Amino acid sequence: MSRKASSDRATLDRLLDTIHIGHFAIVADDAHPVVLPTAVVRDGDRVLAHGSTGSRWLRRLAAGAPACLAVTAFDALVVARSAFESSMRYRSAVLFGQCQAITEPDAKRRALEVITDALIPGRGAEVRASTARELAAVLVLALPIAEWSLKVSEGWPDDPPADPPADVAGPAWAGVLPVVQRYGQPLAAPDLRDGIPLPASVQRLLIS
Amino acid sequence: MSRKASSDRATLDRLLDTIHIGHFAIVADDAHPVVLPTAVVRDGDRVLAHGSTGSRWLRRLAAGAPACLAVTAFDALVVARSAFESSMRYRSAVLFGQCQAITEPDAKRRALEVITDALIPGRGAEVRASTARELAAVLVLALPIAEWSLKVSEGWPDDPPADPPADVAGPAWAGVLPVVQRYGQPLAAPDLRDGIPLPASVQRLLIS
Repeated sequence: MSRKASSDRATLDRLLDTIHIGHFAIVADDAHPVVLPTAVVRDGDRVLAHGSTGSRWLRRLAAGAPACLAVTAFDALVVARSAFESSMRYRSAVLFGQCQAITEPDAKRRALEVITDALIPGRGAEVRASTARELAAVLVLALPIAEWSLKVSEGWPDDPPADPPADVAGPAWAGVLPVVQRYGQPLAAPDLRDGIPLPASVQRLLIS
Repeated sequence: MSRKASSDRATLDRLLDTIHIGHFAIVADDAHPVVLPTAVVRDGDRVLAHGSTGSRWLRRLAAGAPACLAVTAFDALVVARSAFESSMRYRSAVLFGQCQAITEPDAKRRALEVITDALIPGRGAEVRASTARELAAVLVLALPIAEWSLKVSEGWPDDPPADPPADVAGPAWAGVLPVVQRYGQPLAAPDLRDGIPLPASVQRLLIS
């Protein structure tokens, strides 16, 4: 297995543009660590997150608490000839810094549109604009992409070819099982009115 | 959307038995938070993790640093009639506590077998036993399932039925897009010898 640190910003961006589940770590008042899972979306040189203004941990992030954000893709199971060499193909980004709350109304509205359109491309144009009351209920955070590290594990099992145990000469299978993630058949809401077709945004997600 | 805290241990176990990517938060010496993504497997009333003895953060966890572990399943996109109500179906467990290193050789060997068989059921019996040198190179940690919280977001878009904006009466579609994750076609290692068939463990993963 090739496990290597990468400083390639394009690889980082590709990961952040594919995986939208992030895990923030914060330190609580009592010095204990806390993890906050949340949706994350890249917007240029920053990562956006949002949630209810009622969330205590989001408010702590908004106040500038030192933060660490991890975004991880599980790409494949690596099935080696021994348990020891078996592993995963993954990409894992860890970003460090402080979040800033986006409070200026136009900037906040725009950031929320970026989030919507990253999760469901084109959806923003299909739905009404957010109301002032809705905007006020949401906390939007931005973490600069400044201090980060990236690990990429790819490639094949590293079974020993010759040294005992000479696993490559043995009877065990070795290879890679790719993880495939996609969206399944859409389920209409129970209260959906008759005659409303599946929107183009959702149709595109199904074939992407 | 129904977003609720759950204290149901069976729901927690189901999540931990399905999702094997975890994110540990730890506090570094300089009081900054750090996230460590790693494979995690439930073993009864504890969660196991493992990695290289060379990993500084794993060693910090093994030394009993206060830890927080999150395991998150992204189950579906919730496509509401407004951007504001759109969200995700997810299950998210957060565990708090201190890890212990499993060092006694038989217990360590058994814990590693539990990890192997959780990721690839039945694989342990198909491969040779780990050598003493391999065992020595691995750090195995156990976090007790004692202090934890669980959030489950399920159900349908919560679009307002009557109050302005009366989105349910409007033209926008609403529903749920389930996330489907499975393994794709296995890729044999480039150095796989001829005539070695796909093992039963991998075949079972493909139809599960």
